[in-house]
Amino acid sequence: MSHRDASAGVPSSSSAGGGRVRQRRRSSEVPQEVNKANGGGAHLLIDDKSKYKSMWTRIRSSVWMIGGFAFIIYMGHLYIWAMIVVIQIFMAMELFNLGRRAHEDRHLPGFRLLNWHFFFTVMLYVYGRFLSRQLVNTVTSDKFLYQLVSGLIKYQMFICYFLYIAGIVCFILTLKKRMYKYQFGRFAWTHMILFVVFAQSSFTVGNIFEGIFWFLLPASLIVINDIAAYFFGFFFGRTPLIKLSPKKTWEGFIGASVTTIISAFVLANVMGRFQWLTCPRKDLSTGWLYCDPGPMFKPKYYSLEGWLPDWFPWNEVSVLPVQKHALALGLFASSIAPFGGFFASGFKRAFKIKDFGDSIPGHGGITDRMDCQMVMAVFSYIYYQSFIATQSTSVEMILDQILNNLTIEEQISLYQQLGKFFQERQLA
Amino acid sequence: MSHRDASAGVPSSSSAGGGRVRQRRRSSEVPQEVNKANGGGAHLLIDDKSKYKSMWTRIRSSVWMIGGFAFIIYMGHLYIWAMIVVIQIFMAMELFNLGRRAHEDRHLPGFRLLNWHFFFTVMLYVYGRFLSRQLVNTVTSDKFLYQLVSGLIKYQMFICYFLYIAGIVCFILTLKKRMYKYQFGRFAWTHMILFVVFAQSSFTVGNIFEGIFWFLLPASLIVINDIAAYFFGFFFGRTPLIKLSPKKTWEGFIGASVTTIISAFVLANVMGRFQWLTCPRKDLSTGWLYCDPGPMFKPKYYSLEGWLPDWFPWNEVSVLPVQKHALALGLFASSIAPFGGFFASGFKRAFKIKDFGDSIPGHGGITDRMDCQMVMAVFSYIYYQSFIATQSTSVEMILDQILNNLTIEEQISLYQQLGKFFQERQLA
Repeated sequence: MSHRDASAGVPSSSSAGGGRVRQRRRSSEVPQEVNKANGGGAHLLIDDKSKYKSMWTRIRSSVWMIGGFAFIIYMGHLYIWAMIVVIQIFMAMELFNLGRRAHEDRHLPGFRLLNWHFFFTVMLYVYGRFLSRQLVNTVTSDKFLYQLVSGLIKYQMFICYFLYIAGIVCFILTLKKRMYKYQFGRFAWTHMILFVVFAQSSFTVGNIFEGIFWFLLPASLIVINDIAAYFFGFFFGRTPLIKLSPKKTWEGFIGASVTTIISAFVLANVMGRFQWLTCPRKDLSTGWLYCDPGPMFKPKYYSLEGWLPDWFPWNEVSVLPVQKHALALGLFASSIAPFGGFFASGFKRAFKIKDFGDSIPGHGGITDRMDCQMVMAVFSYIYYQSFIATQSTSVEMILDQILNNLTIEEQISLYQQLGKFFQERQLA
Repeated sequence: MSHRDASAGVPSSSSAGGGRVRQRRRSSEVPQEVNKANGGGAHLLIDDKSKYKSMWTRIRSSVWMIGGFAFIIYMGHLYIWAMIVVIQIFMAMELFNLGRRAHEDRHLPGFRLLNWHFFFTVMLYVYGRFLSRQLVNTVTSDKFLYQLVSGLIKYQMFICYFLYIAGIVCFILTLKKRMYKYQFGRFAWTHMILFVVFAQSSFTVGNIFEGIFWFLLPASLIVINDIAAYFFGFFFGRTPLIKLSPKKTWEGFIGASVTTIISAFVLANVMGRFQWLTCPRKDLSTGWLYCDPGPMFKPKYYSLEGWLPDWFPWNEVSVLPVQKHALALGLFASSIAPFGGFFASGFKRAFKIKDFGDSIPGHGGITDRMDCQMVMAVFSYIYYQSFIATQSTSVEMILDQILNNLTIEEQISLYQQLGKFFQERQLA
């Protein structure tokens, strides 16, 4: 506010980036008739119309996206995973195309193919590791298939390594004189893309199988934060937040933070009551999910008597312990995750591109929508593993490992060794 | 050979890169007096002298390096690890300095610091994960220290993530107008360096603790291959191998391959007999190492009777099963690992630099010596994990996990659950 007051008496055209924003923001609060009355009004009016129009385009796209997303959540873990793979492929497509030079590419026919070779090699590696446990759980019934799958799992790392090395050898053998620099640049770019795209998605997939909750809540919080920031900025935005993204304002940022943290608390209470969302999935089936909800999801009741008037219908609230963690997720989603967006903005400005792509009307490319989601997915996974995956899960995890990765003979040998160990210490 | 014969009758000055090599190589086989006799001899002679001089510089450095290396191997696992950390820091120093622009850097005071912040964050992450098991084994005696260490281990991922995110936030907040592109370029470069430097070194450290053998043999093979390629190329080199590195010849490549594969077979037999080299190290102590050598290192005796004359002193050979695997390592070290060198050559040509640094006289920077080592370290680790780490190690691994990561109560609970499982299946 003080920022605005200070410049109120001074012609604002002289100030740099920040001033432009302030003017644009202000135009939305001043009634349009007033705007028309003074000189430059016509221009501002047009700006305003296009602003509303672009808002509607964006809302329409958003509704479609959210609807489709809800449907996929309803379908289950495998479908969510498939969605993530599709998003990854789109992102990689958008990003591989950035900074390509048509002239150089004409002389390098196999170069795009090589990008996708690396892409699918990394995919095989990341998801292969992840599949190993789930897949073994799924196909143990068929002896031959089991052998095949566990063989593939055993040598999966080796296979991926060889595919990768084959890619590198191809890259070196197809180096063309006078294009070294371009080729090495593209090579580095490919690796950056793969790192960004797969680091986040492997964490996301990890979250899904720990329980859809741990994927859905963080993803929703980012969407809520985005939408809230947009509307708070649209209606109240005045003070520019950061030079990198001139459209972002402090009002949008703070309004969105409050909204997101409250939403996190409320949403966790709602989502935490569906077993479909809270149960971990230990195989690749898509059937109904039943589990004993962990202590995180068992409601605790607090009486409200004495706090509220007697005629009020509710006299107690039920709180899930997980809501405490939801607050942490909400705080991160609204304070740190936006830096993913700033990073993307800075990147786009550095390389003078408007959007990473044009797949979604009003939103730009898929990559433009994913910037904060990526930061958030990694955070939620690490948060889950550090603070929520309890020691008791760890017993289960090891038991899982024993039952899935060892032969019966090895299991018995392990059991006996453990027994001997306890006997020595006279424990059991 | 045919390549050379074909161009013998034609004035070779017209041909491109390859011709230059052929001429240079040829000068070493022609006696110098003959060279003096004809016109352009003087120039070739000077070239030759400097060639010999640079060879001697290189040999001196190599002897020093190999001696120091042997001493460190003798000192043990922790010292090898320390050596790797020092090499990493030198490599990072060399690589961080590449492509810096003094003018831009003057306006970005904290930027170098940020590089090192990322470097040590990744180091904490990579080695922290690795330390976890070893450290817990080492300090279990002191209750408080144990608690502290296991706490640090539990939250290690979270701490690293936060340090990393803090780095990203700093990066974004210190973005300066008109330097975006330079800053993002440097940011990407930092990440590429960290990826290359740490991917390889985490594999190397992994190798060391599986047994120094799995680090020493591959590293020696690369050195042998390098030296052999140098000498075979020096004395017999004629046919250029690849345009990227004009000094490399097919003769050097093939001679080195044969030498390396034979050396691998012989060295594995020698190294495989020292328990200091073959035993895995499960904690961070540096004391004497004793273990039951696995089946890989138990010699098998083959009689040579009938194959050799009677007066020959040896009538049987002892072969270690591990020598079979050594052949595979030798094959890789001589056929695929050199591509690490080609990659580095290509990179240097693309960005018009001679060497990555000048730390070692006659060899260039440390990075210049590490190119093939990196490829090899990753390969040996993956090879070891895929083909040598047997299922029986896996029982030990899980036992390790149980005894180190679970509390006594959890261990007993696990034991009982396992027992119940066996009872149900009537197995034990």
